[in-house]
Amino acid sequence: MSDGRREILLAHGGGGRMTHALVRDLFLHAFDNPALAPLEDAARIDVTSGSIAFTTDSFVVSPVVFPGGDLGKLAVCGTVNDLAVCGARPIALSAGFLLEEGLPMPLLESIVASMRRTCEEVGVKIVTGDTKVVERGGLDQIFINTAGIGVLAPPLPSGAATVRPGDCILVSGPLADHGMAVLSARNELRFDTTIESDCAPLWDLICALLAAVPNGVRWMRDPTRGGFGTVLNELAAGRDFGIEIEEAAVPFRPEVRALSEILGIDPLYVACEGRVVVVVEPGSAELALATMRSHPLGREATQTGRIVCDPAGRVVLRTRIGGTRIVEVPSGEQLPRIC
Amino acid sequence: MSDGRREILLAHGGGGRMTHALVRDLFLHAFDNPALAPLEDAARIDVTSGSIAFTTDSFVVSPVVFPGGDLGKLAVCGTVNDLAVCGARPIALSAGFLLEEGLPMPLLESIVASMRRTCEEVGVKIVTGDTKVVERGGLDQIFINTAGIGVLAPPLPSGAATVRPGDCILVSGPLADHGMAVLSARNELRFDTTIESDCAPLWDLICALLAAVPNGVRWMRDPTRGGFGTVLNELAAGRDFGIEIEEAAVPFRPEVRALSEILGIDPLYVACEGRVVVVVEPGSAELALATMRSHPLGREATQTGRIVCDPAGRVVLRTRIGGTRIVEVPSGEQLPRIC
Repeated sequence: MSDGRREILLAHGGGGRMTHALVRDLFLHAFDNPALAPLEDAARIDVTSGSIAFTTDSFVVSPVVFPGGDLGKLAVCGTVNDLAVCGARPIALSAGFLLEEGLPMPLLESIVASMRRTCEEVGVKIVTGDTKVVERGGLDQIFINTAGIGVLAPPLPSGAATVRPGDCILVSGPLADHGMAVLSARNELRFDTTIESDCAPLWDLICALLAAVPNGVRWMRDPTRGGFGTVLNELAAGRDFGIEIEEAAVPFRPEVRALSEILGIDPLYVACEGRVVVVVEPGSAELALATMRSHPLGREATQTGRIVCDPAGRVVLRTRIGGTRIVEVPSGEQLPRIC
Repeated sequence: MSDGRREILLAHGGGGRMTHALVRDLFLHAFDNPALAPLEDAARIDVTSGSIAFTTDSFVVSPVVFPGGDLGKLAVCGTVNDLAVCGARPIALSAGFLLEEGLPMPLLESIVASMRRTCEEVGVKIVTGDTKVVERGGLDQIFINTAGIGVLAPPLPSGAATVRPGDCILVSGPLADHGMAVLSARNELRFDTTIESDCAPLWDLICALLAAVPNGVRWMRDPTRGGFGTVLNELAAGRDFGIEIEEAAVPFRPEVRALSEILGIDPLYVACEGRVVVVVEPGSAELALATMRSHPLGREATQTGRIVCDPAGRVVLRTRIGGTRIVEVPSGEQLPRIC
C-alpha cells in the first residue's frame, strides 16, 4: 500500500515479507490446490507412462480488460487451447506474473479471479508460479506467461501428415471476434460495437469431438495470432496438397465485417481465442459438425472449405462472384498486443 | 530490418512471415531438437510412470548483460536450479520471449546463444516457445519466462518435515556474487569491481551430492531473490526448530563485503544464481562437503550453521564478537530487477 492506495510496489517482487503476503493472500487463496500449497520451488505431478504435451504462451493484451474477457481468462484459455488442439487433456498450468509498480491491486485481483474461474471451468490447476515487479515504465501494467502440461491419450488427431485431398475444413464458430473486440476497446478507437471476444477454453468441445469421431480428426489448430488465414497457410506450406475455402462460407459476424471494412483490416488474419479449425476426413464431417453444434462453444460450427490437389502448398479463396485469390501469409503485424 | 539496422519490429510478433522467419532462423536454429522441430502448438514428451516436477520463473534482469552472465544464461539456470533443488533431473524447458520493438537483433542473438550453451551444459532441451513483441516503451528491452519439467526419482531430499536439531547447513560457495555483480554493472553505479555473477546450472553438482549421501540430504534451496537470509527464514518459519548461523562462517568474497558496505546493503539478502543451501543430517556433513568441493561449482563449499531447538521458527546469527541477532525476513526490496 502506498498513500492509502492499494497498488503493487517493488517490494511485492522482492522475495521478502510483502512477496510472501501477496503469494499467500492472493495467489494461493485463489488457486489453492495440493500441488501448489507447499510453495516449493517446483510442483510435483504424478504421471503414468505415456506422452505428455508441454506448451507456453505469454500474454500482453492491451487493454487488459476487453468485452468478453480479460488478460486472466485469456492467459488460461490460450495455453489450455494449445494443449487441446494437440488432443492433450490439460492437467497443470504455471503462471508467471510480470507486474508494473503502481498496478492497482483491484485490477490484479480481478484478473486472478478470472484465471481461477477459467481453470475451474476446464478442471485444470495452476500448480506453480512466479511474480516479478518492474519499476514504473519498465512494462505496461501486467503481462502473464502460462505454461501447461497435458496428457496425450487416444483418441488423438492423426496428424498433418495424414491430411489428404477431399478432407473437410471445419471451424467451430465465427472468426475474428477476439481481435476485433480488443481493438474496439482501445482508448484511441472506442468504437461502439457489440462485438465480444470469443475467448473460451476449448478442451471440453475438442474432447467431445475426438470421442465422437475418434478416427476422423486429422488436424486441429486454434486460429490465434495471424488468424484463420495464417493457420491454413501453416497447414498447407510445403505439402503436396492445397486448401480451398469459400468466401461465402467463412463465418464472420456482420459487426466484425463492418468494423474490418472501416479499419481496412482483413478479418481472415484476425485472432480468435476460442475457436478451433478442424480438418476431418470426409466421411466424418457430418457427425463432427453435429457434435460441435451440440456444444455451447460450437453452436455456429460450419464447413468453410476442403483440402484439394492444386495448387499444392497454397491456400485459395473462392470469392462470392466466382473468382479466386491466393490467401497469402501476411508479412507484418496488423494488430499488435491482441493477445 | 529498419533503416538497414537489424532490430526487432512489431511484425516479428505478428504471427506472419516475419515471426516464422525469426522462429526458424534464430530459435529453431539455436535450440534444434526433435520435440521442438515440428513447431506444433505443444511439444510431445515421453514419460514413464512416476512423478515429475514443474516450475516457472520470469527474468527481468537489468542490465541484460552483466559480469559472468546474461539474461539468457540466467533464464536457463534459474529454472534448471528450481528443479534441481527438488531433486528433479531437468528434461524439458519452455521459453517465452517478450521483446521490445527496436531491440537490437545482435543482442537477442547473443542471449539466445547463451541459452543454448547453458542448455547443452545441463543436457536439457528447449522444446516449446513463444515470442511476443511490444511497442517501444511497452517493456524494457527483453524479458524471458522459462518453465521446466524434471523427473523426480530417488535419491531425493527427504523434505523440510524431516529437518531436525543437529542437522548441518552447508552452502556450495560464496554468497551474493550474482546480485552484487548485476548491481555493479548498472549504468548509474559502474563500480570498478571484479565481482562476477555465480550464475550456473546446479543439476550436475546436486546429482553428485544426492548420489554420494542418498539418505543424508534433508532439504535444498537455491538462495535467489531474498538471498540466504530469506531462504533460511522460509525453512524455519512455523517449524519447531530454529536455525543458527555463524557470522564468521557465512562465505562472502572480500569485494562483495566491501561493495555491500559502501552501498549499505546487507549481503545476507542478496541473490545468488548458482549456489545451493543444503541441510544434511550430521553424519553426512563431511562426505557431503567433500563431494561438493570436488565439483567445480562447489569448490568453496562450507558449513555455515546448524539446526537448533531454540528459538523455534527463527534464524539467529552468532556474530564475530560473540553476540547474537535475529535474521529477519526483509519486508521490502533491496535490489529490484536483479533476476
